[in-house]
Amino acid sequence: MPIIEMHLMAGRSVEQKRAVAEAVAEAVTRTLGVGPEQVRLLITEHGSEEFSVGGITAGRKQEMAAVSAPE
Amino acid sequence: MPIIEMHLMAGRSVEQKRAVAEAVAEAVTRTLGVGPEQVRLLITEHGSEEFSVGGITAGRKQEMAAVSAPE
Amino acid sequence: MPIIEMHLMAGRSVEQKRAVAEAVAEAVTRTLGVGPEQVRLLITEHGSEEFSVGGITAGRKQEMAAVSAPE
Amino acid sequence: MPIIEMHLMAGRSVEQKRAVAEAVAEAVTRTLGVGPEQVRLLITEHGSEEFSVGGITAGRKQEMAAVSAPE
Amino acid sequence: MPIIEMHLMAGRSVEQKRAVAEAVAEAVTRTLGVGPEQVRLLITEHGSEEFSVGGITAGRKQEMAAVSAPE
Amino acid sequence: MPIIEMHLMAGRSVEQKRAVAEAVAEAVTRTLGVGPEQVRLLITEHGSEEFSVGGITAGRKQEMAAVSAPE
Repeated sequence: MPIIEMHLMAGRSVEQKRAVAEAVAEAVTRTLGVGPEQVRLLITEHGSEEFSVGGITAGRKQEMAAVSAPE
Repeated sequence: MPIIEMHLMAGRSVEQKRAVAEAVAEAVTRTLGVGPEQVRLLITEHGSEEFSVGGITAGRKQEMAAVSAPE
Repeated sequence: MPIIEMHLMAGRSVEQKRAVAEAVAEAVTRTLGVGPEQVRLLITEHGSEEFSVGGITAGRKQEMAAVSAPE
Repeated sequence: MPIIEMHLMAGRSVEQKRAVAEAVAEAVTRTLGVGPEQVRLLITEHGSEEFSVGGITAGRKQEMAAVSAPE
Repeated sequence: MPIIEMHLMAGRSVEQKRAVAEAVAEAVTRTLGVGPEQVRLLITEHGSEEFSVGGITAGRKQEMAAVSAPE
Repeated sequence: MPIIEMHLMAGRSVEQKRAVAEAVAEAVTRTLGVGPEQVRLLITEHGSEEFSVGGITAGRKQEMAAVSAPE
């Protein structure tokens, strides 16, 4: 431990994933005093219909925004 | 909070995902008395070899059913 | 499936947990067309220092609100 | 219950997934004394940039190994 | 990896937890061909109101069974 | 999103939990370019018999170390 699961919207680049993995591991080892080899991070990516806030999926929210946007 | 992770067999339509997101958010806000903007839902889909009951994956169960089905 | 994990702040009553379990199962069976015996819900409760938004735990936020509140 | 989530690196064969599902279910029913129909297993697979130890993703580690390997 | 989360009803003994940890690790290393030091298992226990099937919590089901049981 | 679940051994102080929450949120917002209000962190703590590596729980490992330690 620590074992960390991070849920993200799909679409991050390899560079972003490597950067967040490194930054989170640094944050955790510094504040909890554990060795870096103890820190495991699992990323799970979700498509725009697999994440919702208040019952509205991210995909549906984008559609609603597109319809209501002024020209 | 609440933060909800829902594991489903792969293959639901966009309409079903939007419907379940809306229905679950309504169910949670009504029974727990939280605002809808507090409710986050994450869906993770699993293929037929990534889910098993009693050690038999869904894919293997389908194969067994196909073999044993009468003509 | 569906298998649902719900993360809540600690402190809900038995009645609330039973109500949300029933309402979520109804929402899922109705929108996804699965039998109720397929729907499993796991609740995990988190204390006020085990949940944070933007790096501020719920407990710290409450302290900050108490300090800054007018008499 | 038991409900088990297993995170794996992507790339296992169907045979391996079926074998691990069967072996884990057998291990759990034998040691916990539950019926096999109670044991549910969910597998989530992660790509080489979605898993990291000590801030180094599996993909980055492979690159580093390739660069530093002697001829 | 593999990283495994196991959800159990609360109340298992230390001996059962040690037995299931050992048996699951053996099952996974044997079928997936990974070293034992790679296998991490996290157990989360749930009380009788934190687990439900078909909208009925385990606690409520026990109450219903007690009421309906013949003398 | 991002929504982050962090599994820790039980026993961290309030100060450590607040420090890791703040540090992880900073790490994530900086590397992924999201607003801090988007970052949610859930901590789940595990007792020494609820975490194992290679089939040996943390509690059993401590016992084995105590037995084998020289005077």
